[in-house]
Amino acid sequence: MKPLPRTVQWIGDLPGHVRLIDQTLLPTQVAYRDCKTVEEVWEAIRTLRVRGAPAIGVAAAMGVVVGIQSHTDPANYGKRLKEVADYLRTSRPTAVNLFWAIERMEKKASEPEALVKGVTRVLLAEALAIEEEDRRMCRAIGRIGADLVQEGQGILTHCNAGGLATAEYGTALAVMYTALEQGKQFRVFADETRPLLQGARLTAWELQQAGIDVTLICDNMAAQVMREGKIQLVVVGADRIAANGDTANKIGTYGVAVLARAHGIPFYVAAPSSTFDLAIKDGSQIPIEQRDPREITEGLGKVVAPAGVRVYNPAFDVTPAELIAGIITEKGLIQPVNEAAIRALLEG
Amino acid sequence: MKPLPRTVQWIGDLPGHVRLIDQTLLPTQVAYRDCKTVEEVWEAIRTLRVRGAPAIGVAAAMGVVVGIQSHTDPANYGKRLKEVADYLRTSRPTAVNLFWAIERMEKKASEPEALVKGVTRVLLAEALAIEEEDRRMCRAIGRIGADLVQEGQGILTHCNAGGLATAEYGTALAVMYTALEQGKQFRVFADETRPLLQGARLTAWELQQAGIDVTLICDNMAAQVMREGKIQLVVVGADRIAANGDTANKIGTYGVAVLARAHGIPFYVAAPSSTFDLAIKDGSQIPIEQRDPREITEGLGKVVAPAGVRVYNPAFDVTPAELIAGIITEKGLIQPVNEAAIRALLEG
Repeated sequence: MKPLPRTVQWIGDLPGHVRLIDQTLLPTQVAYRDCKTVEEVWEAIRTLRVRGAPAIGVAAAMGVVVGIQSHTDPANYGKRLKEVADYLRTSRPTAVNLFWAIERMEKKASEPEALVKGVTRVLLAEALAIEEEDRRMCRAIGRIGADLVQEGQGILTHCNAGGLATAEYGTALAVMYTALEQGKQFRVFADETRPLLQGARLTAWELQQAGIDVTLICDNMAAQVMREGKIQLVVVGADRIAANGDTANKIGTYGVAVLARAHGIPFYVAAPSSTFDLAIKDGSQIPIEQRDPREITEGLGKVVAPAGVRVYNPAFDVTPAELIAGIITEKGLIQPVNEAAIRALLEG
Repeated sequence: MKPLPRTVQWIGDLPGHVRLIDQTLLPTQVAYRDCKTVEEVWEAIRTLRVRGAPAIGVAAAMGVVVGIQSHTDPANYGKRLKEVADYLRTSRPTAVNLFWAIERMEKKASEPEALVKGVTRVLLAEALAIEEEDRRMCRAIGRIGADLVQEGQGILTHCNAGGLATAEYGTALAVMYTALEQGKQFRVFADETRPLLQGARLTAWELQQAGIDVTLICDNMAAQVMREGKIQLVVVGADRIAANGDTANKIGTYGVAVLARAHGIPFYVAAPSSTFDLAIKDGSQIPIEQRDPREITEGLGKVVAPAGVRVYNPAFDVTPAELIAGIITEKGLIQPVNEAAIRALLEG
């Protein structure tokens, strides 16, 4: 397999900087952006140059190091760290992984180890650990999921649960990368994923980079492609999974699940165990965010709908557990999907 | 109900001209275009300023009149008429209604009536008759279909089977216009209909013009909207219907039908009886046209997919008869949908 582009990486030792692929320029331009100040990291997260929960977490952790590394007054380290952390938290206030990663960095700075080895050194190690853990998680999901891929299959995916959203292989796409490494032959169909076209812009691009046979379709073509017998497996990512297995993911996922069921095609979710929210009983408790109508009416730089038209633009939908054949996590495959099986894997 | 914009109309008597709404400028600009030469009519059909099978037929018939009206040498009428007809036939060689309308005009010119009243006068009357017949057909479909609309319902439609595609009310949208005239309260959800966005650009616009409560969604949101209980009825148009009721229509229609079935929502097709092709036994014999990949990758003026990516872009799909609750024609409602019921209505 061709090496995947690095989504986020630390360049140099100390002082060093964050290099990330500018996802706002994909797929027409592949450009890396070096962030040498915490302001530049903040801007990259804010403007979606880096996106995807795990990738944001890694970028933010490295951003903390960038913000602290030139601070030469040991007496005020704590104050500076808090400033940097609070500032980075404002870059994307709805991103759970952003808060999780920054909190982890702050906690690390207060441990005895930091006093011995130096705060900056320990924080860099922690940021790299977050990156490495994410990489391992992706690889584990890939290994477990690749067993589901049979020679010659067609696989459908929706949105981008790929390397561009994580430190390396992604979740749903990790399944495909690993199957490719195992020498399996298969084809992928990528839904373009309106309104923001993550499937066209990101998934098609990264699969193409890796040398995977990928075909781009509009979302409304998935049913026809299934009917023609071109799809034997569906794998998608997840934003949040309830205790019973109901799964929130990018809008359109639920429709794909219904179509897969109607055509007898197994529908799998690939997600790290951190995606489960056991405090949520089922999907009815997951709020559906409504987004700006302009994403639909003028999201591609051209106005395509009449002025003042009412628009419904839910960011996510919820796929009920009964439509999900299995959930691929780094800890194992949950199959069948129900609360007992989920708790057994996560708590066992 | 607010009056619908006139898609195609004849202005003046003789000599007169064709006025049509320039659909390439919708929905951001509402501009009428006067075609005073046959070349202007040809260009309007060619560049999709006028589209939709019935509307093209009306425009072409009127185009014949425009081409012949200034011809002052009676001895060469026949030659000129053939020139005009052959020329107009090249404007959109795949449009069946174009050929049908032009042939009808040619036939009329050779009837004895033309010698008595004058060829141009008779041809204008024939063009206006084609327009009027189409208007009546739409109204009849509207009346029959409106009985299916219950107070307070949500209705989903796909693509544009509206007034902009016909001389007046359209087919699927005629059902909604007539229900509105009957004083019924209902809401319409319009799929944007990728890749060419006829739902966003045309359907949302014309329903809005008529004062109908319309909400625009991306195609991949239909399932979620159904799940939320917002849809009680689906009505779409048709491009071609086989003898057994299998229906070819804009890509995405089949997926909507599967989703409707999964949610227990009746799915109706509205189409004139001329849409049936009884020579075709079932949908498997309907060829699916593949269209230019650039409609998907750069259809909105901005490149949204990586260079060289493989694209699957079928123009149509086929919805099997068993997913169709009924077919609304100007001759009556076919329900249930099967060959016997279709032949009984069409041949009875």
